[in-house]
Amino acid sequence: MPHLANSSLEDRPTAVVVSLHPRNGLTEQRSSRRLSLQPKYGHGTSHVDVRYQWTGAPDAPTIIVQGGISADRYVAGAEDQPGWWSELVGPGHAVDLAHCRVLSIDWLTPSDFENHPRAISSEDQADALAGLVDALGIGCVAAFVGSSYGAMAALAFAARHPDKLDKLVLLAGAHRAHPMATAQRAIQRQILRLGQASGQINEALSLARQLAMTTYRGSEEFARRFDGTPDYREGRFHFPVEDYLEHAGRSFVQRFDLERFLALSESIDLHDVAPESINVPATLIGFPSDRLVPLADLCELQRRLRGSATLEVVDSPYGHDAFLKETSKLAPLLRQAISCRRGA
Amino acid sequence: MPHLANSSLEDRPTAVVVSLHPRNGLTEQRSSRRLSLQPKYGHGTSHVDVRYQWTGAPDAPTIIVQGGISADRYVAGAEDQPGWWSELVGPGHAVDLAHCRVLSIDWLTPSDFENHPRAISSEDQADALAGLVDALGIGCVAAFVGSSYGAMAALAFAARHPDKLDKLVLLAGAHRAHPMATAQRAIQRQILRLGQASGQINEALSLARQLAMTTYRGSEEFARRFDGTPDYREGRFHFPVEDYLEHAGRSFVQRFDLERFLALSESIDLHDVAPESINVPATLIGFPSDRLVPLADLCELQRRLRGSATLEVVDSPYGHDAFLKETSKLAPLLRQAISCRRGA
Repeated sequence: MPHLANSSLEDRPTAVVVSLHPRNGLTEQRSSRRLSLQPKYGHGTSHVDVRYQWTGAPDAPTIIVQGGISADRYVAGAEDQPGWWSELVGPGHAVDLAHCRVLSIDWLTPSDFENHPRAISSEDQADALAGLVDALGIGCVAAFVGSSYGAMAALAFAARHPDKLDKLVLLAGAHRAHPMATAQRAIQRQILRLGQASGQINEALSLARQLAMTTYRGSEEFARRFDGTPDYREGRFHFPVEDYLEHAGRSFVQRFDLERFLALSESIDLHDVAPESINVPATLIGFPSDRLVPLADLCELQRRLRGSATLEVVDSPYGHDAFLKETSKLAPLLRQAISCRRGA
Repeated sequence: MPHLANSSLEDRPTAVVVSLHPRNGLTEQRSSRRLSLQPKYGHGTSHVDVRYQWTGAPDAPTIIVQGGISADRYVAGAEDQPGWWSELVGPGHAVDLAHCRVLSIDWLTPSDFENHPRAISSEDQADALAGLVDALGIGCVAAFVGSSYGAMAALAFAARHPDKLDKLVLLAGAHRAHPMATAQRAIQRQILRLGQASGQINEALSLARQLAMTTYRGSEEFARRFDGTPDYREGRFHFPVEDYLEHAGRSFVQRFDLERFLALSESIDLHDVAPESINVPATLIGFPSDRLVPLADLCELQRRLRGSATLEVVDSPYGHDAFLKETSKLAPLLRQAISCRRGA
């Protein structure tokens, strides 16, 4: 475990799985670290266990990759299961694990802290990642590639820990949530609370997820896929798009829980970082069909960042979810934005 | 009651208020008529009481005006209360009650029928209006001005009763619901059913209305109005846009009921009229910021209508609700589209 030997912090790993894949020579650490953080909406310092995965070429530069609120640390997968960004992160891929190492955490929620703060902030997520960068002896990461809420945490990281970061790569995320998106998320949270009050936990979680999906997806895409006739059953009409959403809602209930959704959804809306405080070079990637993070907000972010900032606009019918779906269009942009060749 | 004397139908008015305003010389009928209809999703013929208002210059041509699902028959108001379109309908206004009469009904729901059909259709609303046109001895209306769901009923009217109609004027409504809008409404209906199941009727009705409002309003408008900081109270953060929506939700609960919302919301999604079956001259009015009825759908409608069709595009930050808010921009377009001068 060469990387842990570098750690000079009192924080010790609580459990580490380190494996060297015999086939591709990659190293992989799945573990958690107990860190001391000062959560923005808490009182003073609190301990928290941060679960992370750190995988890639041994001794190569590290890149942080974080996704949306429902993403986990298994960016490129684990134990032969694909990860949420496997098409872009892997040996030979745009984020090339043969030439870099990727670090990612499971998002923190207030209940992860010893002294539960009243909310979790994108700054807290950034501080947890910065704490890990120290604890693992990384020193400085080559890039922070953040999508959606991950882009918000990346901006917070750049504002608070500029010495630990060479490059920002932001997809479909900005310095603050758009008020229309806040409205839509506030309603999702109200649905969750309605379900909590009545004990309809799964129904509410499914329904809030369905509403979220209507904000993630493109209008054109829905028009193309769901232009069919409704089906009358169980005493009412069911529309094709409704069946699709209900199926997606049920799947989500299997893998997510209500408190986590509430906390991370609120965290997006609390996010507010001044772009003027950020001097790290940035590449922004936005999608005109994104209804959740309008391209105009990325334009404003680009204008207000203090460091150099490039804005790449990618056409896609997939709306906000284009960061998950447009992998072939994103690959060359990511390769250009980050540089992890040995010796780079 | 000269207009009722013309009626040759067996259907008799159940109650009539007829008044001649001494000040402006307008006549006003507020009443209901029992009609025999064959609802699309019912079995055979059923009686239904149709509540209407018919107001304007005596003996002038009649224009039907219908709004969205939450609008009522009091287009220009009643008893000194303003109506939902008072700025556009009144003596000297764009729809000039000094030169025409406006007819409008309260939307029907399945529970209005003796034999409850399993759903209400835009065709049923059109048939009810056509039945009234006969019962009141109107013969043919000079125009049907329909906004939102009202535009859907207008299209159904034109397809089924072309001999009773000279002109179609459609605002923010099309031949079918967009699948993304259907998705958003299906979720509103699920919220309502969740509340029904748990007895949280008012909470669910408020919440469904709040979700609807995020689809009615413009994204730009929200960005301008609600770019403030959240307020921590009652154990959680409240965002400015959330306070606004909750207030609007509470007001809605005072004037609307859950079953009515369910039925009319579903009716929008069931609406499907072939534009090729319509030969009545039409003026379409659309708003680029309308997220519920994309301008592209009005372009398609214009292309597919068999009769002449003009499309007017009105810039507005107000989204779908521009048909309620942009009265000064709409007035000249309405004046041009309809013609009710004496002798016209």
